[in-house]
Amino acid sequence: MRTRFQLGLDELRTRLLRMGGLAEQAVDRACQAYIDRDLARCHMVLEGESLINAAEREIDELAFDLLAMQQPMAVDLRFILAVTKINSDLERVGDQAVNIAERVMDMVELPTANLPVDIARMAAAVSAMVRRSLESFIEGKAELAQAVLEMDNVVDRMRDEAFISLVKTMNEHPDVTRQALDALLIARNLERVADHATNISEDVIFWVRGADVRHNVTPESPLRHSATDTH
Amino acid sequence: MRTRFQLGLDELRTRLLRMGGLAEQAVDRACQAYIDRDLARCHMVLEGESLINAAEREIDELAFDLLAMQQPMAVDLRFILAVTKINSDLERVGDQAVNIAERVMDMVELPTANLPVDIARMAAAVSAMVRRSLESFIEGKAELAQAVLEMDNVVDRMRDEAFISLVKTMNEHPDVTRQALDALLIARNLERVADHATNISEDVIFWVRGADVRHNVTPESPLRHSATDTH
Repeated sequence: MRTRFQLGLDELRTRLLRMGGLAEQAVDRACQAYIDRDLARCHMVLEGESLINAAEREIDELAFDLLAMQQPMAVDLRFILAVTKINSDLERVGDQAVNIAERVMDMVELPTANLPVDIARMAAAVSAMVRRSLESFIEGKAELAQAVLEMDNVVDRMRDEAFISLVKTMNEHPDVTRQALDALLIARNLERVADHATNISEDVIFWVRGADVRHNVTPESPLRHSATDTH
Repeated sequence: MRTRFQLGLDELRTRLLRMGGLAEQAVDRACQAYIDRDLARCHMVLEGESLINAAEREIDELAFDLLAMQQPMAVDLRFILAVTKINSDLERVGDQAVNIAERVMDMVELPTANLPVDIARMAAAVSAMVRRSLESFIEGKAELAQAVLEMDNVVDRMRDEAFISLVKTMNEHPDVTRQALDALLIARNLERVADHATNISEDVIFWVRGADVRHNVTPESPLRHSATDTH
């Protein structure tokens, strides 16, 4: 039978996944709004922000209660700390979705421009990163998290390409400067979402390695930033 | 006499302040590099990043050890959790400084342009926010943290003004589009530093209210995002 503490950990995991779902949905909606020039979807993203913020608060409170409830074992302690960090990253993914929606709202007021940037493709890559980082968390698999870290370079390259083409557009077609700038900022927002997925993956690695310690495997550099040089 | 646990808390506080100093220095250096078009300072910022990352790791490890060491009282628990969150924000302040330095390195290769943006003024406002958020932490004063939250609106307005003027510049002088874009992105990076200072202040309020609980004052909505509607 699971103890109250263990049930609390289950609840924490469930809520974090729900939070992840909200953040992912916000990014998808904002990018779909870009593709369809859809103001209604922008407003949905803006209204969804308070839900995400409330979810973040509740998760932090639950984590706090669990830590206060009893002396957690090292592996549970690492899990709870990873959850509070992943929680912050998911909330900021939601903020990025809001930023994207705001830029789309600016664009919709301007004439349509044919811009040399594939936001849909970039959005798909970034969404996959967020989804897989959460999968690596659900399954507690460091190797899945590792794969997300490698995807980050792909997104960085897309952002760089977008940057170069859009600056060229601004130079050659000053009449669409503002549209090009909006698209450039959206590409940057997506890159930041990818960075959050990277942070989440690093936190999963931190937590999973904590589990390894428990199974008497020696961890090397168990924390963030050293995570990329494993294997 | 202070216990080993209490000494650990002192050490955690000291290290976080040192980390804050590194992050603040990185932003100041990057902005000074912008003003002087100084590549050497840009490189200092880039090289300093690994120091900041190492400091973040060490603080997280110490926080973990303290949580594992004994059953902390609620107020100490809130303090340790606030430290791990502030720690993440300071590391990201360092990342923003790197982003600024990279844009300055791009600008230095281009002809000087007279741009309608006062990066120095914006940098001063943002630095003040970071410094005061750390002061509110040292002194454990929620009202100081509250003042930082109010400064965030000022920085947001500066960013909006920069955005409008620089887009105008891009339209009217396509030959300096790239310089104007670099400046615009630097203004956004500074705005993000301000956001991190805001997050830090919210974490201080969370921690201080935890202390209030201990003194039998009822806290309302003790966490992030509700922090702004106090008083």
